[in-house]
Amino acid sequence: MNNPKNPKMGHNKKTFLETPVEHIDITSFDSRKIIESMDKMSFTSRDTAKASGIFNEMLSDKNCTIFLTLAGSTSAAGCMKIYSDMVKYNMVDVIVATGASIIDMDFFEALGFKHYQGSQFQNDALLRENHVDRIYDTYIDEEQLQVCDKTICDIADSLEAKPYTSREFIKEIGKYLKNNSKKKGSLIETSYDNNIPIFCPAFTDSSAGFGLVMHQEKKPKRHMTIDSIREFRELTEIKIRSKSSGLFMIGGGVPKNFVQDTVVCAELLGKNVDMHKYAIQITVADARDGACSSSTLKEASSWGKVDTLKEQMVFAEATSVLPLIASDAYHRNIWKNRQRKSFSNIFG
Amino acid sequence: MNNPKNPKMGHNKKTFLETPVEHIDITSFDSRKIIESMDKMSFTSRDTAKASGIFNEMLSDKNCTIFLTLAGSTSAAGCMKIYSDMVKYNMVDVIVATGASIIDMDFFEALGFKHYQGSQFQNDALLRENHVDRIYDTYIDEEQLQVCDKTICDIADSLEAKPYTSREFIKEIGKYLKNNSKKKGSLIETSYDNNIPIFCPAFTDSSAGFGLVMHQEKKPKRHMTIDSIREFRELTEIKIRSKSSGLFMIGGGVPKNFVQDTVVCAELLGKNVDMHKYAIQITVADARDGACSSSTLKEASSWGKVDTLKEQMVFAEATSVLPLIASDAYHRNIWKNRQRKSFSNIFG
Amino acid sequence: MNNPKNPKMGHNKKTFLETPVEHIDITSFDSRKIIESMDKMSFTSRDTAKASGIFNEMLSDKNCTIFLTLAGSTSAAGCMKIYSDMVKYNMVDVIVATGASIIDMDFFEALGFKHYQGSQFQNDALLRENHVDRIYDTYIDEEQLQVCDKTICDIADSLEAKPYTSREFIKEIGKYLKNNSKKKGSLIETSYDNNIPIFCPAFTDSSAGFGLVMHQEKKPKRHMTIDSIREFRELTEIKIRSKSSGLFMIGGGVPKNFVQDTVVCAELLGKNVDMHKYAIQITVADARDGACSSSTLKEASSWGKVDTLKEQMVFAEATSVLPLIASDAYHRNIWKNRQRKSFSNIFG
Amino acid sequence: MNNPKNPKMGHNKKTFLETPVEHIDITSFDSRKIIESMDKMSFTSRDTAKASGIFNEMLSDKNCTIFLTLAGSTSAAGCMKIYSDMVKYNMVDVIVATGASIIDMDFFEALGFKHYQGSQFQNDALLRENHVDRIYDTYIDEEQLQVCDKTICDIADSLEAKPYTSREFIKEIGKYLKNNSKKKGSLIETSYDNNIPIFCPAFTDSSAGFGLVMHQEKKPKRHMTIDSIREFRELTEIKIRSKSSGLFMIGGGVPKNFVQDTVVCAELLGKNVDMHKYAIQITVADARDGACSSSTLKEASSWGKVDTLKEQMVFAEATSVLPLIASDAYHRNIWKNRQRKSFSNIFG
Repeated sequence: MNNPKNPKMGHNKKTFLETPVEHIDITSFDSRKIIESMDKMSFTSRDTAKASGIFNEMLSDKNCTIFLTLAGSTSAAGCMKIYSDMVKYNMVDVIVATGASIIDMDFFEALGFKHYQGSQFQNDALLRENHVDRIYDTYIDEEQLQVCDKTICDIADSLEAKPYTSREFIKEIGKYLKNNSKKKGSLIETSYDNNIPIFCPAFTDSSAGFGLVMHQEKKPKRHMTIDSIREFRELTEIKIRSKSSGLFMIGGGVPKNFVQDTVVCAELLGKNVDMHKYAIQITVADARDGACSSSTLKEASSWGKVDTLKEQMVFAEATSVLPLIASDAYHRNIWKNRQRKSFSNIFG
Repeated sequence: MNNPKNPKMGHNKKTFLETPVEHIDITSFDSRKIIESMDKMSFTSRDTAKASGIFNEMLSDKNCTIFLTLAGSTSAAGCMKIYSDMVKYNMVDVIVATGASIIDMDFFEALGFKHYQGSQFQNDALLRENHVDRIYDTYIDEEQLQVCDKTICDIADSLEAKPYTSREFIKEIGKYLKNNSKKKGSLIETSYDNNIPIFCPAFTDSSAGFGLVMHQEKKPKRHMTIDSIREFRELTEIKIRSKSSGLFMIGGGVPKNFVQDTVVCAELLGKNVDMHKYAIQITVADARDGACSSSTLKEASSWGKVDTLKEQMVFAEATSVLPLIASDAYHRNIWKNRQRKSFSNIFG
Repeated sequence: MNNPKNPKMGHNKKTFLETPVEHIDITSFDSRKIIESMDKMSFTSRDTAKASGIFNEMLSDKNCTIFLTLAGSTSAAGCMKIYSDMVKYNMVDVIVATGASIIDMDFFEALGFKHYQGSQFQNDALLRENHVDRIYDTYIDEEQLQVCDKTICDIADSLEAKPYTSREFIKEIGKYLKNNSKKKGSLIETSYDNNIPIFCPAFTDSSAGFGLVMHQEKKPKRHMTIDSIREFRELTEIKIRSKSSGLFMIGGGVPKNFVQDTVVCAELLGKNVDMHKYAIQITVADARDGACSSSTLKEASSWGKVDTLKEQMVFAEATSVLPLIASDAYHRNIWKNRQRKSFSNIFG
Repeated sequence: MNNPKNPKMGHNKKTFLETPVEHIDITSFDSRKIIESMDKMSFTSRDTAKASGIFNEMLSDKNCTIFLTLAGSTSAAGCMKIYSDMVKYNMVDVIVATGASIIDMDFFEALGFKHYQGSQFQNDALLRENHVDRIYDTYIDEEQLQVCDKTICDIADSLEAKPYTSREFIKEIGKYLKNNSKKKGSLIETSYDNNIPIFCPAFTDSSAGFGLVMHQEKKPKRHMTIDSIREFRELTEIKIRSKSSGLFMIGGGVPKNFVQDTVVCAELLGKNVDMHKYAIQITVADARDGACSSSTLKEASSWGKVDTLKEQMVFAEATSVLPLIASDAYHRNIWKNRQRKSFSNIFG
């Protein structure tokens, strides 16, 4: 076995890639009692419980559109099924994510590949030699990633040469997976099935970027482009059509900022929209650097983006607390009374 | 209710001190399935599961003396019952803690007082006016703390004037609580009942210090002192008498360093002892500042204090992950086969 | 004055926006002696000095293309002139940045607006009422930001309706500023003057996004788009044409990942390029969350993106150490012997 | 040379211990211009400048007793001379420190030993084999540390068998160093020369503890003890005799808490004292864990320990910003007009 305390034991790609990451199943345990207990405590436990409470309020609010934002690598680290279950069980209406979360991780596993348990103490030169890529304590087979890049290129080649939003292109990927996925139930495929739009505002900054550059290179005259302006307009349209809205944010980054900015964008378009009414963020980022990823939700309220009545930061690495929050919501069954919003349909 | 989103609503001590912190009960939920799932993930979830695994190994190792170290304010924040349950269910043999954890928090609640849920955003000047002391998002009635100080003084007044180790003095507090505690089952009382020694290497740096200074001031000629040298010798004696040892560390600080140093101290006394064989630490501290609290267990191994085969850092705020680790251990029942080590008895 | 210790004193926009942030001038003090001393110390001081040393090596290496990446809000916080001075004094060849750094901050000040010293403890509801936006402890006049958005729309309206890369569009902004800037010497204008390309891979996720959505809304049939695929190809072309390359990264985010990915992209295009030979990153991010922003440069080497011989992470908030590194480099005068690479010219 | 990028190159103790840490000399560069510039910026740079400003106010306030507290390992990392220069140039009146800062680091170097530049990536097993102890990226010769332990034992053996406060014992060490120091100008010796008392409230938790346990073991009947209660009373006496007081805190830990607690202790003794009027703390600790080390100075004000008008947290690793603050204060020469308080003298 790949011993994290003695990382040198694994000498070759085969031994490095021995123990796949298995994604946690929030239906297999019931965290309600834990969350209820944490609600009576302090520090991060209480923050976690308060975030749970706000998420349950979002689910109870029939008018509330729930945006899930994903940044960081939690999908690689065992949370991938949480996100697709949130879609499956109607706990999220729109996804805004980094390209890596959607393409390098979710699409990658849908193609039948896996992430592997590794060690952050491993010598990187040895990994390099073996074409093993490392995300903190998790490994990926670089050659499999290249298959992923290439498949994106193939999908792009098969499409009409015109500007796409990332949402439109990811919908095409969903269509592709209906026929070609090796692993069923990926986030892309489940979202496709349920008309949940997925936006990747910095789409090129991922494995998708490699595939799309190859596509343009192959077809210098007739190729697709990504119109990230129109995609911002699309996301804003969803905000405009939502009476109320809530944000469930894993990490920060471009997805966090992008979805918050829809409020400002709607205003600039002359539309009367409310601030996001509910907001929770799970992050280890540190507010002191003044970056958006780490900016508190209170700060966002000064910009008129997020209301402050129902917001909760949880300063924790998401893999440790997200399973509790999501399992609590699953077992409370509030989702059973929600109607699917099917926002993909509004774009025809 | 004390609204953390609108902290100004609470105007007086009564409204500030409305919602007591309730301590989580690890027997009331079963986290085994969660820990097992996290073991197959990555990042902090896996670290948490690995720490659980190492703790279970400590419990299985009949020769292993388990040292629990406490720094920080998790006892105030809802983990107090976890620690007394760990003693009750024979999952720990020795405690090394900050004075605050033992006196300001555990003894304080044993006297019938409580900690309260508050807000880190509350204006501190208003708290000051109301004699409410704040620990991050948790409140304490300052006047009750003064009762706590005074009781320590009374206990000291009642004792023979001689040097005590903190262990000896805390044993006297245990004796006092047998007759006077308002809340039964405190960590001090449970430890007293089970002959578990408690050491506070910086004992004066707490509410105890206030009481003991008052005691010396009242009795300038005949008073007790704390001999922290002998107490280091006592703790080292326990290490010397242990075939094997493991550390379960909440936060860092003096308790972490003190218990690790017993290995070096034993060597300097000419005794042949092993490094601590097992070690887990839950902390948010950041290794980059070179302080002991944040130093990794690998670093400790360079000093010959901790073995590296069975060590795990969990970078998390303890209230969020400790309940999972402790509940897992409780439900696995390994503790049922452990013999009590009753180390208090070796000191007569 | 705006008292950070008594934030309530400022009641209206005028009093909130009283003390402008002034940008530090690295030519006005000489940090060489400090850096030399820090090189002989440990912890973050030594990391800072090592980063200085690597930057000086980049400047000495005639073949080295220097990429400056900007994420976070250091431009708002007083580092804006550092970046334009780095361009002015030929210490950087390419810039990859968040849209906010370039548009909301640099372009914003070029239009004659300012950032203001504020307080992270200020009540955000009061800021909201006064249309003052907060970045940690720094304030912005929201109405001025809207002028910035609108100006972007005007520039877009004036251009030919076709797909632009962010680089091409920012070049047009530079052209606009040549005639219209109120503050001379902005990063955009200085870069324009010196043929330094600026890339914003998530361009829409900024004030630019607002302006461009307005532009498309006004001109539904004939409007510009941003082709972020081609822009990745352009950045990769620069990497391909560079014998050697170095990264000077402020924060992480999309800019960090994007510029590192050029190595992989070049390979996929069949080009033989070296890993980035030099790399320094200043960040407060925490590697434990497995996100790219916080991933160490050693981790990047497992992906074949960054060489490990000359890399240094500096775990610090950039405003505190960047002035030392940049002033050291300025005063060593190595830049005087560098030839301008004028990469803007390769795109015609 | 010891290559931090290729830590395996150093195979034996000699090659590990090749490059000594050299302590930065705040008189050799003038940071005033940098601090003045940072005062006009935001984020950590402004916090640093504000801390400088408060320190200069402390120095200007003739009534202000300045307490320097030291926790963490900055003395090992190149700041040792800063602290002794602060004493030499009359910028500090009392020192409260961890035992490690005073004994393992300052006394250790006074005996002629050194700290060495190392690497945090070095394999700790190899260090262990070579008896090299690691503090993050800094190395120590373990055998030299044992000489340090033993010397403490010798000093204790030479003293009258009675209870000492750590202050009294450290004064004896100062006396010893007058005749025996190999390196002149250590913090202990300079403090001894200038009647600056040094307190170590958790004294046993250091190399001193090892020496003192050996001492008691050698002399089971007649030995010294450390009375940490009386030492708290002594420190409180200094607070009582000070019209005004200010705290300059490096890290947190027991020293921070201990010195803050003097206000409460004085009150309990019926003395009328003010809160600490000025307070600055440099730390990387994270307030979210509710521990004292990381607790903000605003939180301390709820306890009535620290006034909030003149307090500043600087969230930075101290080696990176302390040299700037201390050099600024040195070059402003305010210290030239201060009178020595010579607090050691009040204890006879």
